[in-house]
Amino acid sequence: MKFETTWRPLRDSGVPLYRQIIAYIRDKIERGEWPPGSRIPTERAMAQAFGVNRSTVVQAFAELTAEGCIEGKSGSGTIVSFIAGDQSIPKLPDWESYVKTGVHRPNQRTIQDINHAEFIPNIIRLGTGEPSPDLYPQAMAGILRQMPSEMKDFGYPEPRGLYALREEISRHMAGYGVKVSPDSVLIVSGALQALQLIAIGLLKSGSLVLTESPSYLQSLQVFQSAGMSMSGLPMDEEGLEAKALEQAARSGKGTILYTIPSFHNPTGAVMSERRRQEIYRLCVQHKLPMMEDDAYRDLWLDEPSPLPIKALDQNGLVLYIGSMSKTLSPGLRIGWVIGPEQVIHRLADVKMQSDYGASALSQWAVMQFLRQGLYEEHLDFVRRELRTRRSYMLQLLEHYLKGKAEWSVPGGGFYIWLKRKGEIRIPVLFEEALREGVLLNPGYLYDKTDQDHLRLSYSYAALEQMEKGIRLLATSIP
Amino acid sequence: MKFETTWRPLRDSGVPLYRQIIAYIRDKIERGEWPPGSRIPTERAMAQAFGVNRSTVVQAFAELTAEGCIEGKSGSGTIVSFIAGDQSIPKLPDWESYVKTGVHRPNQRTIQDINHAEFIPNIIRLGTGEPSPDLYPQAMAGILRQMPSEMKDFGYPEPRGLYALREEISRHMAGYGVKVSPDSVLIVSGALQALQLIAIGLLKSGSLVLTESPSYLQSLQVFQSAGMSMSGLPMDEEGLEAKALEQAARSGKGTILYTIPSFHNPTGAVMSERRRQEIYRLCVQHKLPMMEDDAYRDLWLDEPSPLPIKALDQNGLVLYIGSMSKTLSPGLRIGWVIGPEQVIHRLADVKMQSDYGASALSQWAVMQFLRQGLYEEHLDFVRRELRTRRSYMLQLLEHYLKGKAEWSVPGGGFYIWLKRKGEIRIPVLFEEALREGVLLNPGYLYDKTDQDHLRLSYSYAALEQMEKGIRLLATSIP
Repeated sequence: MKFETTWRPLRDSGVPLYRQIIAYIRDKIERGEWPPGSRIPTERAMAQAFGVNRSTVVQAFAELTAEGCIEGKSGSGTIVSFIAGDQSIPKLPDWESYVKTGVHRPNQRTIQDINHAEFIPNIIRLGTGEPSPDLYPQAMAGILRQMPSEMKDFGYPEPRGLYALREEISRHMAGYGVKVSPDSVLIVSGALQALQLIAIGLLKSGSLVLTESPSYLQSLQVFQSAGMSMSGLPMDEEGLEAKALEQAARSGKGTILYTIPSFHNPTGAVMSERRRQEIYRLCVQHKLPMMEDDAYRDLWLDEPSPLPIKALDQNGLVLYIGSMSKTLSPGLRIGWVIGPEQVIHRLADVKMQSDYGASALSQWAVMQFLRQGLYEEHLDFVRRELRTRRSYMLQLLEHYLKGKAEWSVPGGGFYIWLKRKGEIRIPVLFEEALREGVLLNPGYLYDKTDQDHLRLSYSYAALEQMEKGIRLLATSIP
Repeated sequence: MKFETTWRPLRDSGVPLYRQIIAYIRDKIERGEWPPGSRIPTERAMAQAFGVNRSTVVQAFAELTAEGCIEGKSGSGTIVSFIAGDQSIPKLPDWESYVKTGVHRPNQRTIQDINHAEFIPNIIRLGTGEPSPDLYPQAMAGILRQMPSEMKDFGYPEPRGLYALREEISRHMAGYGVKVSPDSVLIVSGALQALQLIAIGLLKSGSLVLTESPSYLQSLQVFQSAGMSMSGLPMDEEGLEAKALEQAARSGKGTILYTIPSFHNPTGAVMSERRRQEIYRLCVQHKLPMMEDDAYRDLWLDEPSPLPIKALDQNGLVLYIGSMSKTLSPGLRIGWVIGPEQVIHRLADVKMQSDYGASALSQWAVMQFLRQGLYEEHLDFVRRELRTRRSYMLQLLEHYLKGKAEWSVPGGGFYIWLKRKGEIRIPVLFEEALREGVLLNPGYLYDKTDQDHLRLSYSYAALEQMEKGIRLLATSIP
């Protein structure tokens, strides 16, 4: 367990710091937040979190140990021994074993670290796949202002989501050649949820998910936690290699394909139109269904990406996944799935069993944003901003990392897939940069065997921060 | 698959209805919504959904069959045979088998029917566990009006949820004797999600969940879908029977207890203070962790319920689950879990892998509602309204169902647990009432073996509707 808290001892309260820390720990214990038998954070972790000398925490620990509140166990840190003043309460339950045996896999260690480090004040986030707060839609204010008078329904949403929003999505998708009625659209709480619903709603334990290598999907545990495995297929300059897919499909082992054909995460690559047709044809031939994750489509910077594979799909082979997280804002938690009607019904039923639908406020806000034609305008703004950010980052790379790394210029999306030269190991680089206050996304998140890449993102950090971050990164690569 | 659509043929377009239906079906097929090989809705279902004579649909089917678009298969309905004009496209993939083999269980048939029937226009919802739109907080309008200027952060929320909201929840819970720091509070997308996170985050396949019989929990598939089973324990007038729990605990088979001690769903019962202590003591003794679902606590109508079991809990034994769905509005999708810090971290990590957190709009709105002290005021209003609704329903029962059924007066929450007399079977009653436009929640949802009860709710239907509904219900019980 990572220790983090917003609590800090007060320096001018007249109460010695170590006494305040004792009170803090006692509170935690008495409230059952740190139950008897549980391991408490180390002295070092507490000193760091509280911003005090380690000796202060050592003093607090010593007193609590003398009182019999906590006890040091060699090899397993410090344990809460019993509730002060009531020795009759036994140690229980063994939450640690519950935490360890749960069906769902924990996030990869590095992802957990990243999730936490993102909230360190002043951290420079050079890997974050999220639009900068500067890119949030100003026009949303107007929408929210209309909400109180126009939004009448705060009830549980329909299983497939707000009808008016599904209509807007259906209209939006027609612009990309995907014709679909609102009946076959499911609103989800972000694209990640779409993957979870597919994992537990459509696939059986033991299924094999084929995907690009590297892939965003490989950074998740969503399919593995449902008892499935993944197999990464190589990419070339046109995207996922058709030959590799054909081999995998022919072996009959793949249950479903996951692909990000447009502005691929993490490489930024765009699958060519020809390759899309080829991949689709192969999937038809081998009766292999496909998830097409198209979260970055709207964020083309040089030219629009070819039409979605879904636009070719008269067979209902493709489950298309869209999202507002990268364009409008992730906090809305709105995405969608398009597929055959019976599949959409099944996923909607599983969704009703997961969270009874997405936030009505969020659904309403996105619906209005689309309906009032504000989305296209907003995209123009985001693209302009992203172009500026992209060229600035490329300029910084040229200046600071030439000779130390290689990269290509992405045509859209958020990411630059950076290949380091030289000897430095990426896990070391990640740690070193983090100590300097720079948060990176190492390539091994997207392909376990990768030792060479970083996923940089120009979408999040402010320009000054970007400069500082790349400069620090450069000093870490010898 | 239930067939539902908002599409209707136009009666005065000059195009014959059956032609419009042909066009509709062709569209569905060409867009991959009804892929080749998939079963399409029956003539009867279509006629009903479209509001046309069955003969009109029969005519449309006949023409499409003659064209070779669809084909009747004896025993398995009508199948899409291939895409008109392109016989080369093979049938694929077999989505029906994917839908059937998915890991997650489908909702119980009756729940699926209810989920769909709720959106039938003018349906009278006598079982719905949801506040009527009349009970939605007027003051929310003011909050939403402030949102555009005050809400700065639409990014991915912190793993445990918006800190300011966790602070408010911590303050709110202190009023119920539950002392907890914001560190040990997790914001979830509704209480149902809390259950899912616990199921996949803390329990292993094969775990046994103990719960009251009947229980809301038995209407869900959340634990079963994760490979767990449930065991229902009897209740008496003080709530869950301690003796039964002791036996179950002693046998060592239970992994965790789920209980709704306050205004139990579906019975409305309140566990006495004495029983709470007894149950808690037993759980301590047998090291049995507990989920305390307290979604209805704020909705006391006669007198407040005894303090939560969590208020007794210095052992970190209880995972406390709260919700805004029953009080503020379900569309917000905001609930919370309180537990030992390491458990909260684990659940937060799994939540990050499910949907990256709850809607930032919803979290912000609830936080402000609490912070500005509007929640208590709103509860006063809701309680007043619910009291009126409760007495009106009791009056109706007295008038229409005396001698035909028995019930007790709930001290809070939404539900009256109605026991029918006489011979009518509850499944028949459910179907009959639905035909009359009255939607009920049969007792067998909450206890498979129950053949005697209905869960009535006075929270949702308008008073006139309630009258009409109970009157129709009375005619269905001979």
